Amino acid sequence: MFGQLTHQGQHVLRVELTRLGWLAARIDGGPHALFDVTISKQLKELVDRADRDPSIHAVIFTGAHPDRFLSHADVTWLQEGGVGFPPINTSIAGVVTRMARAINKIPIVRTLAAWTKLKTLLQLDSLHATFLKMNASGTIFIAALNGSALAFGAEFAWACDLRIMADGDYLIGMTEVLLALTPGGGGSQRLSRLIGPQQTLLATLEGRLFTPAEALALGAIDEVVPQTNLVARAIERAEYLSLRSKKSLGAIKRSVYFGSSLSLEEGLQLEHAEFLVLDQSKEAQQLMLKYIAATETTGDLPLMNRKTYARALSAGRLGD
Amino acid sequence: MFGQLTHQGQHVLRVELTRLGWLAARIDGGPHALFDVTISKQLKELVDRADRDPSIHAVIFTGAHPDRFLSHADVTWLQEGGVGFPPINTSIAGVVTRMARAINKIPIVRTLAAWTKLKTLLQLDSLHATFLKMNASGTIFIAALNGSALAFGAEFAWACDLRIMADGDYLIGMTEVLLALTPGGGGSQRLSRLIGPQQTLLATLEGRLFTPAEALALGAIDEVVPQTNLVARAIERAEYLSLRSKKSLGAIKRSVYFGSSLSLEEGLQLEHAEFLVLDQSKEAQQLMLKYIAATETTGDLPLMNRKTYARALSAGRLGD
Amino acid sequence: MFGQLTHQGQHVLRVELTRLGWLAARIDGGPHALFDVTISKQLKELVDRADRDPSIHAVIFTGAHPDRFLSHADVTWLQEGGVGFPPINTSIAGVVTRMARAINKIPIVRTLAAWTKLKTLLQLDSLHATFLKMNASGTIFIAALNGSALAFGAEFAWACDLRIMADGDYLIGMTEVLLALTPGGGGSQRLSRLIGPQQTLLATLEGRLFTPAEALALGAIDEVVPQTNLVARAIERAEYLSLRSKKSLGAIKRSVYFGSSLSLEEGLQLEHAEFLVLDQSKEAQQLMLKYIAATETTGDLPLMNRKTYARALSAGRLGD
Repeated sequence: MFGQLTHQGQHVLRVELTRLGWLAARIDGGPHALFDVTISKQLKELVDRADRDPSIHAVIFTGAHPDRFLSHADVTWLQEGGVGFPPINTSIAGVVTRMARAINKIPIVRTLAAWTKLKTLLQLDSLHATFLKMNASGTIFIAALNGSALAFGAEFAWACDLRIMADGDYLIGMTEVLLALTPGGGGSQRLSRLIGPQQTLLATLEGRLFTPAEALALGAIDEVVPQTNLVARAIERAEYLSLRSKKSLGAIKRSVYFGSSLSLEEGLQLEHAEFLVLDQSKEAQQLMLKYIAATETTGDLPLMNRKTYARALSAGRLGD
Repeated sequence: MFGQLTHQGQHVLRVELTRLGWLAARIDGGPHALFDVTISKQLKELVDRADRDPSIHAVIFTGAHPDRFLSHADVTWLQEGGVGFPPINTSIAGVVTRMARAINKIPIVRTLAAWTKLKTLLQLDSLHATFLKMNASGTIFIAALNGSALAFGAEFAWACDLRIMADGDYLIGMTEVLLALTPGGGGSQRLSRLIGPQQTLLATLEGRLFTPAEALALGAIDEVVPQTNLVARAIERAEYLSLRSKKSLGAIKRSVYFGSSLSLEEGLQLEHAEFLVLDQSKEAQQLMLKYIAATETTGDLPLMNRKTYARALSAGRLGD
Repeated sequence: MFGQLTHQGQHVLRVELTRLGWLAARIDGGPHALFDVTISKQLKELVDRADRDPSIHAVIFTGAHPDRFLSHADVTWLQEGGVGFPPINTSIAGVVTRMARAINKIPIVRTLAAWTKLKTLLQLDSLHATFLKMNASGTIFIAALNGSALAFGAEFAWACDLRIMADGDYLIGMTEVLLALTPGGGGSQRLSRLIGPQQTLLATLEGRLFTPAEALALGAIDEVVPQTNLVARAIERAEYLSLRSKKSLGAIKRSVYFGSSLSLEEGLQLEHAEFLVLDQSKEAQQLMLKYIAATETTGDLPLMNRKTYARALSAGRLGD
């Protein structure tokens, strides 16, 4: 699929609509495999499109570099973003962050702000919004990690729903502490929710990276496969999940990603609201009526019949 | 204990007060082992009674069907609940859910509402309240899974404090996606808190079920035992925990279930409040005074003496 | 280091400034190894000092008793704290706890309150504030568990960043239920965040303790080493982490400890704010400029060079 693409030295997210149901995007961050503003904008457009289009069920990301998924963010971008502000402490920074989130919602103010010192801040905030949209979307995002992913590279992978990593001499993790920084792309939050706070804390304090096997054992990635099978395996997973109702996938993702870090009562209310919406949907109503009819016809519940259940897993729904 | 009960074809929760300290309830969801409104009401009454009665320390649930704990909810009930509403989106659904919670607290409004289109919504909300009461109660709820538990069947088990499953060709998990639905009985929230969000996400997106061994390895259940030992083991656990102070058990359950998904600071305040209440209780005061006296008499702290500690575990408290 | 210290029968936290970068404190809770008000006050002073002093990067705690880290809290202290209040229920206790937090912030009110019945309450609340300060600080706190740690002893260890335990016939865990109490030193909250709510719930309901091997397997401690290597290993870890930027360590700790139990969106905002502050810091700016220069000079990203990365781990930062 990606064979014909050759590296062209410019940072770009190459998107190819390969089949009905899923897209593949190769992240080309140049010879150093860096994530920068250009890719960030293209990522936002891709995520918006995939989320909006009911026919796009999955997006696969992989790297253009032979042994890197994404090295990390462009350090010049981060460095310039820290210059020119009046010195701020953490509580002021919190206000600024919330402001950025508000400003980004107003296109005109955004254009003006883009020329001020807030530029990098707004760009980072926009990136956070993109990642949150990935978490909230009915589209499944799969990171096919063809190589190493450090700092922001790892944070990108953790914002996806599934991480499949090629076996090999690759590393994944957060190295920010070694530049006297702290993760800023969501990594401390998403890795804590994947592998627990203590393993996240220790590795991030040290700046320690994980091999594919270590990452798998901890839960920081979901699968390790040979490099030659990587994209094929990602496509297999994309196609399998693509057969399921996009609305269901979105409701499940929101319930788990957002609900699981709310208080138990609030999480339950979120889940309940998602259920009420789907319970009224035309598709669920039809499937439930078919289920009731099939129970009467066959004398047993379709889900309790192993063959019917296995067929439903393959088809993405019961009764097809 | 349950030997003399024969299946009578009606949905019912058969409760038997077997000994001082614990109750056993057999869930009889008819030939299909379905959970419906009748069982839901009986469950609410049982939970209210067990929570209120200081002499009921544990409740064991098991299924009446030979190889099912509970298949899932009655699909007709869910299907009819989704008809007749004006189409709603997720944020309206959130308001409706909160409204339902409020309405359920006013018995008269509830009776009226029960005749409207909100009926199923309120019934589901009442079920959520029952599960939350189980989590907040000093009574220990044990699911003795004598067979499969899908969708709401699994969600019921996850609302209990302990899950013991019979070894055999049984399955547990959430299949809602295969009907274009999303979990609505708390499963996405409680399973996330049991086995982590990522394993919950992947299984729920797929509609994948767990065998007893898989569920045990993930933490979705607590023990697997031979079918013939299932009820005996559940009773053993019930009796062991029943010897402990019911007030302590409730405080610990609330601290863990509710505190662990609050912010760290709020969680600590909740725990602190629970501690202050118990620190004043007559029972704790007496046990602390005995502890101080025993330290003086024996020259060492009772808890640091292995034999005294082992006796305390068996007796449920120190100094008995 | 600790060799010359002999037990003197008084409760005290012996602090020794051993080298630039880290402090060691031996907790001497008398012959019974109990935690009391005296040690609590000294702990507060030590934490305040370590947090404030930019040259103190790590603090190691170990026990003075031959086979105990800390038995538990002084029971007389807890028992007297529960007497004299009007009987309160949990929701009143919540208000009282919040009040205590407010009162503790006003030194004069505190002195007055210290003579009232609120005394123990305020002392406990002050202890909670000390533990939260440990979590929020750029100083790394290491528990070198030379022996058993029950109830408050375990809670102290869980408030540290790293737990290294001596191999031997020692136990760690929460026994409060056996005195008809519930954890009050943060244990139900911090252990839930270390090993998950379900394992915390079951052990705490039972009053069950963990051996070093069990605690390690669950994640309740981070390492088990021979008793003879315990302090040396704690120092090794302290020195390794001490080489990293104290500001980075603090930002990472706050992002993980506080962010991971906020809603995902709020957690991301907290992380983002921490990042913005560090991005402007003189040290990070210098390191980023060096990084950009080195990339140009060497033709590759320093972090992607295994030798450079290994040197950075040892030095605590890149480019030194």
